[in-house]
Amino acid sequence: MSKEEFTQLFLDEIKDIFDAENQIVKGLAEMIQAAESPELKNAFKTHLTETKNQVERLRKIFKMLKEPEKGEACEAAQGLIEECKEVISNYPASAIRDAGLIVGAQKIEHYEIATYGSLVVFAKELGLDEVADMLEDSLTEEHNADNKLTSIAEGGLLSSGINEKALS
Amino acid sequence: MSKEEFTQLFLDEIKDIFDAENQIVKGLAEMIQAAESPELKNAFKTHLTETKNQVERLRKIFKMLKEPEKGEACEAAQGLIEECKEVISNYPASAIRDAGLIVGAQKIEHYEIATYGSLVVFAKELGLDEVADMLEDSLTEEHNADNKLTSIAEGGLLSSGINEKALS
Repeated sequence: MSKEEFTQLFLDEIKDIFDAENQIVKGLAEMIQAAESPELKNAFKTHLTETKNQVERLRKIFKMLKEPEKGEACEAAQGLIEECKEVISNYPASAIRDAGLIVGAQKIEHYEIATYGSLVVFAKELGLDEVADMLEDSLTEEHNADNKLTSIAEGGLLSSGINEKALS
Repeated sequence: MSKEEFTQLFLDEIKDIFDAENQIVKGLAEMIQAAESPELKNAFKTHLTETKNQVERLRKIFKMLKEPEKGEACEAAQGLIEECKEVISNYPASAIRDAGLIVGAQKIEHYEIATYGSLVVFAKELGLDEVADMLEDSLTEEHNADNKLTSIAEGGLLSSGINEKALS
């Protein structure tokens, strides 16, 4: 393959995650409203701020690459966010809704982890070191957000909150 | 929430991943055919065998929980597999197709990592220790498959194979 083809594949993934992040900004706003636990609500709020920064980073990358700022409809992100919306419509504000939202949110984080992980490798291979660093910052934020949700599920919500109610 | 509600959420996720795994078995068969690099082809073959084992594990779990063996249409998995099919139809067998397939496959792995990660936590909280162990085996396989693809991208395909062609 030519360098142009490889750059095109890289750009396609940038457009995909740009669309996904914009969808996630809207989805997280709903999840903040829907979460019952203040700890979970705060984790979603923090991640909304990070997600908005990630959108800005992608805007800068489009600029640096002299490419039009344009997303490409990301159906996977749409499906993942739809799962979270189903949790919200299936359960009233409750510990069970929170548990479902954590699962849904972690699936979204992992979609981003996979995408940013590949993008970092591609950017490095293309010699786009500054772009790779910016994408790596987003990747680190996604890992941290995922770990935070796991710790809420394991240490906070599930073992002390949800499960006392759930398993009593 | 009641224990019944929490069990129901757990079962919903089991049904979701059961459908996803069955879709992935079919998807991987196409990806094996489509990959150009023998190393990538082999990685997909190994993971197909693992995925079939994961389906069997889920069948056992349905049996252990005395639940009918039934999937629930997993739209997220469908979207993720669709992305891989698009790569196959957009590019002829080539290094660029392989790079695209690696990205697509890692997104699928991460969907499974997120799902099995939550399922292990839920199973433990529900006191289903044997089920948790089985799900943990699948989680470990997914992590290994993801790492394998990263090492093919970083160490093999991209740096020596794809990129010599791509960036020369």
